[in-house]
Amino acid sequence: MRAVLLNAPGEVQVVDREPPRIVEATDAVIRVAAACVCGSDLWPYRGVDFIEPRFMGHEYVGVVEEIGADVQSVKPGDFVVGSFIYSCGECEFCLAGYTSKCVHGNFITAVGGTQAQFVRVPHADGTLVATPGTPEPDLVPSLLAASDVLGTGWYAAVAAEVGPGKTVAVVGDGAVGLMGVLAAQQLGAERIIVMSRYADRQHLAREFGATDIVEERGRDGVARVRELTGGFGAHSVIEAVGTKESMMQAIKSTRPGGHIGFVGVAHDGDDIPVKHLFASQVHLHGGPAPVRRFLPDLIDRIMKREIDPGKVFDLTLPLEEAAEAYAAMHERRAIKALLTT
Amino acid sequence: MRAVLLNAPGEVQVVDREPPRIVEATDAVIRVAAACVCGSDLWPYRGVDFIEPRFMGHEYVGVVEEIGADVQSVKPGDFVVGSFIYSCGECEFCLAGYTSKCVHGNFITAVGGTQAQFVRVPHADGTLVATPGTPEPDLVPSLLAASDVLGTGWYAAVAAEVGPGKTVAVVGDGAVGLMGVLAAQQLGAERIIVMSRYADRQHLAREFGATDIVEERGRDGVARVRELTGGFGAHSVIEAVGTKESMMQAIKSTRPGGHIGFVGVAHDGDDIPVKHLFASQVHLHGGPAPVRRFLPDLIDRIMKREIDPGKVFDLTLPLEEAAEAYAAMHERRAIKALLTT
Repeated sequence: MRAVLLNAPGEVQVVDREPPRIVEATDAVIRVAAACVCGSDLWPYRGVDFIEPRFMGHEYVGVVEEIGADVQSVKPGDFVVGSFIYSCGECEFCLAGYTSKCVHGNFITAVGGTQAQFVRVPHADGTLVATPGTPEPDLVPSLLAASDVLGTGWYAAVAAEVGPGKTVAVVGDGAVGLMGVLAAQQLGAERIIVMSRYADRQHLAREFGATDIVEERGRDGVARVRELTGGFGAHSVIEAVGTKESMMQAIKSTRPGGHIGFVGVAHDGDDIPVKHLFASQVHLHGGPAPVRRFLPDLIDRIMKREIDPGKVFDLTLPLEEAAEAYAAMHERRAIKALLTT
Repeated sequence: MRAVLLNAPGEVQVVDREPPRIVEATDAVIRVAAACVCGSDLWPYRGVDFIEPRFMGHEYVGVVEEIGADVQSVKPGDFVVGSFIYSCGECEFCLAGYTSKCVHGNFITAVGGTQAQFVRVPHADGTLVATPGTPEPDLVPSLLAASDVLGTGWYAAVAAEVGPGKTVAVVGDGAVGLMGVLAAQQLGAERIIVMSRYADRQHLAREFGATDIVEERGRDGVARVRELTGGFGAHSVIEAVGTKESMMQAIKSTRPGGHIGFVGVAHDGDDIPVKHLFASQVHLHGGPAPVRRFLPDLIDRIMKREIDPGKVFDLTLPLEEAAEAYAAMHERRAIKALLTT
């Protein structure tokens, strides 16, 4: 089969690789219908945390090709959406909704990238959700979004305790931030402020429900959010970048007693002063999104056409042109690229 | 009147000072019945954050001596308990329960230390709570504890979402940590693990409701908490020290999806890696305790003799001997010292 390999920073290749097969009785093998490039894929692409060549991709939808003897919830032929972290669905943490910390779980990349024609999914029963029937083709991008970027934005909004009557600020106008806007709108936020300097992203943010755009950054950005919130700061803030600066921006934009949902992937050196956290008196919660918790609800909203998160894909290319998909996102020519197989 | 002055690090003096009087119509002047030394008073005593000589003390109970023209909720002769931060009780943050971030508020030390015979309390209506009648003398230490150390431990437990069926771990066996134990017990925790190496504090912790003591620190301490919690970590963790090490200890002792209430006063240089926070997937909330929010409930429990937080005072001295009170706490000869006036 064909699969995307990041051979070195900036060097994306599509290569031949042995297709995966069932290893454990709880596995499923999926024929990938669509995969995509994640903002977090750009970190190793840019040389951050790049250690050795690796197969890429962790977002996926597709059709079940084969299942292990113990798999019960999906069968060959089912169209399925999976989380970027596989999870058993039965452990202490899965039962508490933290499927991303499943004691038997791991990132799907640990068993193979999903920017490929096939992928093996461990713990299929705890990881995959079948759609009711085969979805119309135009719904595939939205279902693919649910696999990570929508699920992550949704988790950020839930972690930030978004709800009716609240003002939400979103730090980061990448795909996850934009999905955070959509989630905030769906969860009933009264006002949604997005920090963005790019016209195309501002446009999409408004389509997803943003009511205010703040173009300023840093101290000026914080001042503007405070100005828009009566001097108090937002009730809920979604942090979707993952740097010390964006985290401090989020903390300073939140009112005392307010909530930050942070989902930007932090790196070494991004330390925040406890002193500021202490004084800010905000609530902080985040981490890798337990997407599986939200999948049934998200799939339902998508199948009923209540939400259209697939709009976040502004570039669609065949798998063979993955290198261009990475380059376009790296150069900000695309917000998020979908790969067809 | 007599008042405690920290003249230089390690140099506590009791000096004459002009007694306070009503300045604003919303002020009250209190004749202090009892004050005490806080763990946070030891920071400048030890030379950390010491800038210039200052009058000390922020915990207090006493009798209202005089009120301004606009004060309605307390009257001369009332026995009152106040928070260490004064608050208007009417602003956006006060109404949301975050009296410690009142837009008109400040630390009581901004208008004068409470280790003194009298203190002026701004925004008396939003800051003070009168007890029902004059309390029996043996209840005074407990009421004094409510002013900060109990209120802070209580807030930490609430921020850590302590509740029935939960396992709580407490990092820090100082007075606030011990009050966190009491709060956890009152809020229905199933199991309360205290990290402590001192026999007297362990003893008091058990009296307040601790079920397990962990003497190990650092990595070994975390391992022991995990061992006691089925490998998962505690549901709720109270951080009551305020260093990078104690915060990391708290984060590593909490299960994914669990909650940390942190009330230890952090200082410059205590930075924590966002990467660890991200991976831990805990909830973090804390800061200066909005004690006023809890005062009516705490006073009620004390007056009904349901709780006896006053036990945390293991040294009582007259105000004139304040220097010895500081020294005893600094040298860990006392957990917490009460000063009579």
